[in-house]
Amino acid sequence: MILKTTSKKIMELIREKNFSELKNELMQMNVVNISELIQEFPSVEALMIYRLLPKEKAVDVFYYLDKGYQQKIIEKITDSETQHILRESQFDDMVDLVEEMPASVVKKIIKNTSREKRGLINKFLNYPDFSAGTIMTLEYVGLNQNWTVKESLDHIKKVAENVESIYTAYILSPHRKLKGIISLRKLLMSDESEKVKNVMVKTDLITARTYEDQEDVAKKMSKYDFNIIPVLDKEDRMIGVITIDDIIDVIKEENTEDFEKMAAIEPLAEGYLEAKTWTLARKRIMWLIILMVSATFTEIVIRDAESVLSSVAILASFIPMLMDTGGNSGSQAATLVIRGLAIDEIQLKDVLKVLLKEFKVSLIVAFALSLMNFLRIYFISQVGFTIAFVVGVTLFFTVVIAKMIGAMLPMAAQKLKLDPAIMAAPLITTIVDTTSLILYFTFAKTFLNL
Amino acid sequence: MILKTTSKKIMELIREKNFSELKNELMQMNVVNISELIQEFPSVEALMIYRLLPKEKAVDVFYYLDKGYQQKIIEKITDSETQHILRESQFDDMVDLVEEMPASVVKKIIKNTSREKRGLINKFLNYPDFSAGTIMTLEYVGLNQNWTVKESLDHIKKVAENVESIYTAYILSPHRKLKGIISLRKLLMSDESEKVKNVMVKTDLITARTYEDQEDVAKKMSKYDFNIIPVLDKEDRMIGVITIDDIIDVIKEENTEDFEKMAAIEPLAEGYLEAKTWTLARKRIMWLIILMVSATFTEIVIRDAESVLSSVAILASFIPMLMDTGGNSGSQAATLVIRGLAIDEIQLKDVLKVLLKEFKVSLIVAFALSLMNFLRIYFISQVGFTIAFVVGVTLFFTVVIAKMIGAMLPMAAQKLKLDPAIMAAPLITTIVDTTSLILYFTFAKTFLNL
Repeated sequence: MILKTTSKKIMELIREKNFSELKNELMQMNVVNISELIQEFPSVEALMIYRLLPKEKAVDVFYYLDKGYQQKIIEKITDSETQHILRESQFDDMVDLVEEMPASVVKKIIKNTSREKRGLINKFLNYPDFSAGTIMTLEYVGLNQNWTVKESLDHIKKVAENVESIYTAYILSPHRKLKGIISLRKLLMSDESEKVKNVMVKTDLITARTYEDQEDVAKKMSKYDFNIIPVLDKEDRMIGVITIDDIIDVIKEENTEDFEKMAAIEPLAEGYLEAKTWTLARKRIMWLIILMVSATFTEIVIRDAESVLSSVAILASFIPMLMDTGGNSGSQAATLVIRGLAIDEIQLKDVLKVLLKEFKVSLIVAFALSLMNFLRIYFISQVGFTIAFVVGVTLFFTVVIAKMIGAMLPMAAQKLKLDPAIMAAPLITTIVDTTSLILYFTFAKTFLNL
Repeated sequence: MILKTTSKKIMELIREKNFSELKNELMQMNVVNISELIQEFPSVEALMIYRLLPKEKAVDVFYYLDKGYQQKIIEKITDSETQHILRESQFDDMVDLVEEMPASVVKKIIKNTSREKRGLINKFLNYPDFSAGTIMTLEYVGLNQNWTVKESLDHIKKVAENVESIYTAYILSPHRKLKGIISLRKLLMSDESEKVKNVMVKTDLITARTYEDQEDVAKKMSKYDFNIIPVLDKEDRMIGVITIDDIIDVIKEENTEDFEKMAAIEPLAEGYLEAKTWTLARKRIMWLIILMVSATFTEIVIRDAESVLSSVAILASFIPMLMDTGGNSGSQAATLVIRGLAIDEIQLKDVLKVLLKEFKVSLIVAFALSLMNFLRIYFISQVGFTIAFVVGVTLFFTVVIAKMIGAMLPMAAQKLKLDPAIMAAPLITTIVDTTSLILYFTFAKTFLNL
């Protein structure tokens, strides 16, 4: 809302070539808002606005831009402007940039980076995908354990400009082993002449590892309510820190991935709007094929029951309802269990508790649904008592079995160290379909004497 | 892992009544880990361990315990112990406690609270559900704009012990209007004799409102990478702050809610394992009934096609495959659009872009699936060319229509200010089923000359 009026005003200023007023306007804006504003304009104006930014804001604004705009800007600015951006960048942002830009832009970036940093970038690009190493920041406050509180505070003031987070400091041995952690709060509250080693927290230090999965780090930080966590390498040396803003992005990504998996889509690396048509089609088709081919089972079951269906044709009309209700019941149970496992609310050891719970829930739900459906088709569809009864009984068992399968499969997947999210609605539905049809025709044969 | 050995050791120490060693052990542990440890024990031992905790740790440990253990502890401790917990509590934690405990425990809590705090608790309980007001903290650092940097720093040191976050300070007018914001970092880097009003950020201040939806606050903090945000009331007075750890809980809850809605479950207020059987059944049955009753449409379609089915009985056997593939295709599109809308990656204005994209994707996917299915049933199931052709054509159109419906409905819901998450797999499947069956029988009649 604010943006619309602002962008009109900015457009006006550009037309009037009133650059000093424009500069003034930009000075007062938040960097995130400036980056949104820039993206309202085509590239010529966007670059013009970008170049008017005060130097200290320019780099932050740059990193809030979309990939497309970042690329356009790097392509058009001079080498010395590029160097300025890279010099002022947080290291992890720079690594992301190198990973995301096309080769021509990466070339320009690498050309304008110091040799030392180039080596580091290479090292970072080698951390496993989705590991803590790929999201950590190298800049943090390290203290010497023999410093006093005063010396430590002076050091923090000195480095404050270049470090992402100064509110937690790490006390390191000469070999970069982590000896203790201290918050700026604690430092401010402590006697200035005290040694840091006497006031730091030195036991029960919670840390992450470079090779640890980012999702596990996210869980750890959320569990302990941390805003920052130190990252150690295999040799126990402290390498960097991970801050909470990056963890929020991880949580978002992991959730998106779960939503995708649960809808039988292979996770996308990019956003929906950025993804190419071919990519979107490719990520969806594999599971559709698998599930379509598994429908061979339902085909066989129905073909076998041809005589039943031809004697009582109306039985066919209830197949969709039975299948859908079974699928929905199963996917309800599966979703709750998958989500519970994902946020550690349900553990593998709870398996019996979960199955018992689902069993009780399924009895209630199955009873209510079958009764309601019996009454509906007996009185409204007028199908006769026995058929209504067969449909009702099938529905009852379908719902109970669907819920048990829906609860069990995600836990089995977890046990087998597979991702429980694949045991969601699409797969459960396919499995429940076959079961439900077999029951249906068995009951029909029995009660209708076919 | 660490916990298992620790809890054995603690059990040993309890048996030996070696309380001084036990105390020592607890002193070295992180509060989150202590609370996990306590919950490994039955209530008598749990209370014993709790009482051995150093006073400054006890309150934090208490708030990390599950509801059940919190209740047991409050029920058993003395009034003066209760008063200690309440005195040292962050206000938002205390409000949560009052909301969650049973009446008898709330009575004990209220009895041991000062009258002033009782009034405040009441006010908090009146904020709308899921509003920013319900998750904010009242304790923050407020500064006077005429103070110098030195005076401000001295004030921060003084209040540091009682305030959740001291790393961002708020400059307020005498009527508690927010005039500016300053980070502790900036204060430390500024000249000590400078006035705060000259170094604070005073334009483009991003704030939340007490009545604002917590999900919107979460989006805002994530967008601007904030660790803390000030909360103002309707009269623009600053009331409190929201910190990032509470926002992470909000993000988790909102995601869980979306997973539930997308599986046709009404959101649960509690965790899966804590929820009662009746609650779980109640939250699931409404949607199951709605979806089951909408299956009346498929029933009608199939009954109308009785003559088609009786002449070519084998057509019935492909109904489950057509329905499931249609449902899965539709739910893939719906899930991506729902998630895109939830994380603001897709906006309403992108509607044409989304539909065009889904159309292109659906053509590719539909063509591949139909061809593959045609070959499968023609060569393997040996159903004859025309039937294989009818099934193939139906599948093609079903997939295209399913993807278009799947993409469109969530955006329509958003436009109508409904939650897009309800337009997920279950509803899409039901709608696609009917469409797909109508197409199927129409094609069958046409191509098989029935």
